[in-house]
Amino acid sequence: MKTLVVCSGGLDSVTLAYKVAEESEVDSLMSFNYGQRHTTELDYARRCAEKLSVPHDIVDIRSIGQLLSGSALTDNIEVPDGHYEEESMRVTVVPNRNAIMLSIVFGAAAARACDAVAIAVHGGDHFIYPDCRPDFIDSFQKMQDHALNGVHSVKLLAPFVNIDKAEVVRQGAALGVPFIDTWSCYQGSGHHCGRCGTCVERREAFALAGVDDPTHYHDEDFWKQAIAQYDHKRP
Amino acid sequence: MKTLVVCSGGLDSVTLAYKVAEESEVDSLMSFNYGQRHTTELDYARRCAEKLSVPHDIVDIRSIGQLLSGSALTDNIEVPDGHYEEESMRVTVVPNRNAIMLSIVFGAAAARACDAVAIAVHGGDHFIYPDCRPDFIDSFQKMQDHALNGVHSVKLLAPFVNIDKAEVVRQGAALGVPFIDTWSCYQGSGHHCGRCGTCVERREAFALAGVDDPTHYHDEDFWKQAIAQYDHKRP
Repeated sequence: MKTLVVCSGGLDSVTLAYKVAEESEVDSLMSFNYGQRHTTELDYARRCAEKLSVPHDIVDIRSIGQLLSGSALTDNIEVPDGHYEEESMRVTVVPNRNAIMLSIVFGAAAARACDAVAIAVHGGDHFIYPDCRPDFIDSFQKMQDHALNGVHSVKLLAPFVNIDKAEVVRQGAALGVPFIDTWSCYQGSGHHCGRCGTCVERREAFALAGVDDPTHYHDEDFWKQAIAQYDHKRP
Repeated sequence: MKTLVVCSGGLDSVTLAYKVAEESEVDSLMSFNYGQRHTTELDYARRCAEKLSVPHDIVDIRSIGQLLSGSALTDNIEVPDGHYEEESMRVTVVPNRNAIMLSIVFGAAAARACDAVAIAVHGGDHFIYPDCRPDFIDSFQKMQDHALNGVHSVKLLAPFVNIDKAEVVRQGAALGVPFIDTWSCYQGSGHHCGRCGTCVERREAFALAGVDDPTHYHDEDFWKQAIAQYDHKRP
């Protein structure tokens, strides 16, 4: 099954690329420059494509990013510190980001006669991001079945949609994913900041998975405090 | 109801803009440059925005158009002459075009807190283009309800989806749409060619509607021949 993998260069999507390469066939990786401040991640997607010896496309959709203003990921709004599932992380929502990226990838997959598209949304994304939930994934497949009816059928794979990030780390470790070559931080400077939602989530996932975290964080200790604070509020 | 109107500058979408302006409120018009050879149409969308005194955005998605190669609308493949509903018109399919454009427009509509998005797909589009059919429209709304759950609810309006182009012309005439300021031709040079699928469809729609067609066609007579040939094959 020839699969086009949406790969941001993050831990989840790089693990997904390795998983697809192991289980079937990667057609290529596709990344998006939507004006995110952490474009560093795109270098990590490139490294992943090189390691897997597959083509890599970076699609420049900055003109679209400008239309979706109001998110801390694209605008001059401060990226909040804390736990990824905190209410305060809602400022990192880029409205309709996954629907936009997936519809572009499905168009490319149809043009290249790929059998499937794979995306690395996982269970921990559900609280903040509606376009990472199983219902969204199911409805997106149905929409695409209509949109490409008679053109070319493409299946949407989201193998992590019902597992948490710790389980993604476990699977990645089993697949031999070089985690040092993945990028999570929303701040996007030289090292992982260790304080933003995705840094805290990354650190916690390694700890829960019982896998060594090779990442260098600018603030090595903040994550424990963020998790302790969040634990008071967990339902 | 503040509505963002997808407007290519064609007869259908300009009529739609006038209809929305008459019945509720146009937030703005949004057009796409996806590398189509008939970018002339974008000037007509601009004219429509000026007439209605609303903002106009042209979103440059040429980088995406390159991924969707293989269509006569974007590549160096000859645009076929003939009737719009002929099998030969399949080369004008740009895979997933409406899903891509609509998902971008929904993202913008959510960012701007619009109530609705309007698109001018009509009954005559159904045969060739799967992403113009009522099933696609319904499934797209469901997908968006999931993708923007808790962010901002946006309704998809497709008031022409069950009527033919002749009825669009009738409604446009009643609304006082300046048809001379709309562009249909896929060839995209100075005058409408009169031979491509959309020129033939436009001419036929005016004739069926009993409305004067103010358009100057390079080939004034070809449409009758194309329709006569197609009529032999109509189911």
